[in-house]
Amino acid sequence: MDYQKILSDISAQIQSEPPDGEVASYIPQLASVDPGKFGIYLLATNGKNYSAGDSEEKFSIQSIAKVLLLTRAIKEIGRKIKERVGVEPSGDPFNSLIQLEYEEGIPRNPFINSGALVVCDILVSFLDNPKSDFLNFVREISDSDEIHYDDEVAESEKKLAYRNRAIINLMKGFGNIENDTETVLDFYFAACSLSMSAKEVANAFSLFANEGIPIGTSKKILTRRRVKRINAVMQTCGLYNEAGEFAFRVGLPGKSGVGGGIAAVHPGKYAVAVWSPRLNQKGNSSSGIAALELLTNATKSSIF
Amino acid sequence: MDYQKILSDISAQIQSEPPDGEVASYIPQLASVDPGKFGIYLLATNGKNYSAGDSEEKFSIQSIAKVLLLTRAIKEIGRKIKERVGVEPSGDPFNSLIQLEYEEGIPRNPFINSGALVVCDILVSFLDNPKSDFLNFVREISDSDEIHYDDEVAESEKKLAYRNRAIINLMKGFGNIENDTETVLDFYFAACSLSMSAKEVANAFSLFANEGIPIGTSKKILTRRRVKRINAVMQTCGLYNEAGEFAFRVGLPGKSGVGGGIAAVHPGKYAVAVWSPRLNQKGNSSSGIAALELLTNATKSSIF
Amino acid sequence: MDYQKILSDISAQIQSEPPDGEVASYIPQLASVDPGKFGIYLLATNGKNYSAGDSEEKFSIQSIAKVLLLTRAIKEIGRKIKERVGVEPSGDPFNSLIQLEYEEGIPRNPFINSGALVVCDILVSFLDNPKSDFLNFVREISDSDEIHYDDEVAESEKKLAYRNRAIINLMKGFGNIENDTETVLDFYFAACSLSMSAKEVANAFSLFANEGIPIGTSKKILTRRRVKRINAVMQTCGLYNEAGEFAFRVGLPGKSGVGGGIAAVHPGKYAVAVWSPRLNQKGNSSSGIAALELLTNATKSSIF
Amino acid sequence: MDYQKILSDISAQIQSEPPDGEVASYIPQLASVDPGKFGIYLLATNGKNYSAGDSEEKFSIQSIAKVLLLTRAIKEIGRKIKERVGVEPSGDPFNSLIQLEYEEGIPRNPFINSGALVVCDILVSFLDNPKSDFLNFVREISDSDEIHYDDEVAESEKKLAYRNRAIINLMKGFGNIENDTETVLDFYFAACSLSMSAKEVANAFSLFANEGIPIGTSKKILTRRRVKRINAVMQTCGLYNEAGEFAFRVGLPGKSGVGGGIAAVHPGKYAVAVWSPRLNQKGNSSSGIAALELLTNATKSSIF
Repeated sequence: MDYQKILSDISAQIQSEPPDGEVASYIPQLASVDPGKFGIYLLATNGKNYSAGDSEEKFSIQSIAKVLLLTRAIKEIGRKIKERVGVEPSGDPFNSLIQLEYEEGIPRNPFINSGALVVCDILVSFLDNPKSDFLNFVREISDSDEIHYDDEVAESEKKLAYRNRAIINLMKGFGNIENDTETVLDFYFAACSLSMSAKEVANAFSLFANEGIPIGTSKKILTRRRVKRINAVMQTCGLYNEAGEFAFRVGLPGKSGVGGGIAAVHPGKYAVAVWSPRLNQKGNSSSGIAALELLTNATKSSIF
Repeated sequence: MDYQKILSDISAQIQSEPPDGEVASYIPQLASVDPGKFGIYLLATNGKNYSAGDSEEKFSIQSIAKVLLLTRAIKEIGRKIKERVGVEPSGDPFNSLIQLEYEEGIPRNPFINSGALVVCDILVSFLDNPKSDFLNFVREISDSDEIHYDDEVAESEKKLAYRNRAIINLMKGFGNIENDTETVLDFYFAACSLSMSAKEVANAFSLFANEGIPIGTSKKILTRRRVKRINAVMQTCGLYNEAGEFAFRVGLPGKSGVGGGIAAVHPGKYAVAVWSPRLNQKGNSSSGIAALELLTNATKSSIF
Repeated sequence: MDYQKILSDISAQIQSEPPDGEVASYIPQLASVDPGKFGIYLLATNGKNYSAGDSEEKFSIQSIAKVLLLTRAIKEIGRKIKERVGVEPSGDPFNSLIQLEYEEGIPRNPFINSGALVVCDILVSFLDNPKSDFLNFVREISDSDEIHYDDEVAESEKKLAYRNRAIINLMKGFGNIENDTETVLDFYFAACSLSMSAKEVANAFSLFANEGIPIGTSKKILTRRRVKRINAVMQTCGLYNEAGEFAFRVGLPGKSGVGGGIAAVHPGKYAVAVWSPRLNQKGNSSSGIAALELLTNATKSSIF
Repeated sequence: MDYQKILSDISAQIQSEPPDGEVASYIPQLASVDPGKFGIYLLATNGKNYSAGDSEEKFSIQSIAKVLLLTRAIKEIGRKIKERVGVEPSGDPFNSLIQLEYEEGIPRNPFINSGALVVCDILVSFLDNPKSDFLNFVREISDSDEIHYDDEVAESEKKLAYRNRAIINLMKGFGNIENDTETVLDFYFAACSLSMSAKEVANAFSLFANEGIPIGTSKKILTRRRVKRINAVMQTCGLYNEAGEFAFRVGLPGKSGVGGGIAAVHPGKYAVAVWSPRLNQKGNSSSGIAALELLTNATKSSIF
């Protein structure tokens, strides 16, 4: 499979037909990103890598961090996480409070905001220094020391975090948050503020394509079974209320962020990350989804 | 892979630990089924087949028919189906009216009752004789002439079909049903009443494991791309509000029915059908899910 | 109190500032009504009556019938009605299915469609000939033999009654409808099709202003306590999800219909009916509400 | 009308049949209240007063404060309040977030928590010192200097105020809260912590029975029209999702609090306050409602 030609073709095609949609504008740091950016990076399980466009430029990974937070938490507490967060699609937008109220503070899954906040609460309980521990973990699986929290992004988010503050207080009222709500929010926004390139994101997600071992290393991060389970949750819940459409068009487990990034994996074959900041109406990267659809069509290969 | 030993082991294990749960009891024909039944049948893409237990005994396929109805409809009208039914998980039980009201009569996906009723409406519009046409289609892809509608089941369902009648009238009010509601319901209940064995169901679903060609035949029923898309919808929506859990534990696209059957596929590898009538609280076969989880664990192979 | 001058002033003011809004158009019989019509009729407990405009012209009473149906049913079965229909505001539009699903087929109150259908089901169970019995009852309390069902209206409604058919089937599925659904719908649409003038409606509602005795008669239809209770339900639930606004602006128990009529009562003082076909966005007569607000302001008298 | 005999009879009857229900227990200060307490106080518009039981013992007025907050705010900003809070029944429990999310941060009415928080936000914006201003206002209309905030109650509430914190942050996210959320919550909990007797509450509410003038004074607090409007909102929204039942059984505008108090008014006749700490399942005083129903039955007089 000539992945390099495929990525180059995709990049050319995306660049020639700029997508509809707008860059996220609720904080100035995201609003000021160049909407024309596009980068894609693919790391195959045989260790080879391929790229096109701005694949080494940093962007705010935002909700993509939710997968890494979950991975870190499962290493720590394993299956007990299911007592506090489910694995079902929500059918609602990422930040809805409605199901959370009906279902008494138990989030549907770890990839909506409520679920990720519970995961952060678990990490705050288990880790001595959650921020530095998590940063080290991400650097390790990404094989990069050049990954940092973006404090300006985190601060901006925190100032406007009324919806997330509503969510975490609702869960606290139901007894599903153990720690101080502001402490948990602080950690959550730090994690979401991570600034990474498509290359780094693909490296980090390569463990999900390679039975728990980041490609190019020999370090087992997760068991094969846990990898399968996280991939399953990514498939059914990774793109909010566009998860079904993403499975339908792309056919890979994946996770998106409001910074315009999407990570996806083809278990046994490759991890891929794409970045394009314009978002569709459901808050996912328009060109990112289009590029991944082109990829699975061109390779005639999805998990389905 | 010694599939035969694996299926025999699974059958022995399931029989030794009978599951919780009750047989569906809302109509007498389902209530009278022996709750101890268990059968499993696997058809590999190389044409070999394996089985254990009551794999050639007929059961009421019920909602499993929804995948076959969708397949028949897509052959006929293709992508236009998306104008009338979505591909997103509902996050709600299979027969909820709430989303349908908020979303103005457009069902979330074709595998909840509302979506399947829209698919039936499409077939009623397109086919001269929907019942005989659909029966012939199922017989063809199942490679069996011994498949029949169970009129008693269909009649019993129809008498109690208040919820489905509510659903179809609500959609008709929103303009998303073209035909007479009773005509559509009559076809829908006929399709759900099909009596098939695990062997026949696995044969019918083998086209989803084999790029659109029922295994052992050379007849292309669907394009590769449409197979991928139906598999994606099965993965995200096939087990009602237990779809996430099924992906998490089993890791295969699949579809369940209230008769206790589940069909699942591993694209490129096999189609499998299992039958055990006791249902869990979400209306899916308890032992059926357990058996498929044992299968993907024993083979160390799921799509994730 | 010079009611005649007040009504004449109101009529002049309403005519001089025609309201926004559109005549109901979902059936041709309502769509063809002259939008400029306006009539008001007030019957005081001392037996005197006052009127202005088209107060003796017939209009389709539609949902105003729900109060008369409830009155007839309470005469028959009394307090047991509360086992099957509540007395709380719904907070939702008149024809929503959502609460009905959450609350397992028990309607919030008798003045939304679901509740009125349950009341009709009760009357179908209790009365030998519901249609003629109910018509005689309405004629009796209205002191008019010139009241008739409008079969064309009823037939038109029935053809388009998908939403009501959804509602009644949902309740039937929950066990809260005893009779055949089409039989109940047939009676319901007949009742709603009654053609009455503002004068006749005010006469019919005068029993709610006069401790259960239609003004000008000596016939006790309801006990004082039941009158109080029906008035309470009218106040909290009579104008769908505009009930609060109606209490706020007008301050009288009342009931509206999509034909543009509103009946209201000031217990101990008067019954009043107003008719103007243009409807606001919540389906209530714009000028009807405005006229009643002018009335309670001019008389410096509401129940609050 | 021999109100004194009626109140004494009611008190005797209530004491002889202690109600079901439990005292509010979510904070220790409420949990420790003697569940056997019962007091009732009625102030007629002619200036005479009547009482029975513990009518001069202080209790925590809790949500009854919402009416006083609204009254103070309407004095200040008048009708503009309707831009930020509605007047419709919610049909949901007092602290639900669901409607608030669908309706984009605009509370249904000022007597559910969300609405009262908006009213507090308005007062925080308008008043130099909201707490002392509001306390002076309540003392003035209650004709009592012996009214104080209960700081222990307020502090206890604040520590557990996750649900209210969720609500106010959700509204802040929608732009319907102007001030710092903790500042508004602090004022809100102070207001709810007011410790008053049935006598003082009846005095405070007497302005709603007397065209805006506290009985026994000559001070016009509100116009007649505004009194009518607040009474209307009390009638349709004053007892959360039991407002319809309260109208049905009692037939007076009223407002309840989780401390076991209920205030009610018969416009033109009297204001009444009752206190009994055991709550029914909807959070309203069981005996309080029963006592008021006995009152309107014995006097053969409700607003309906």
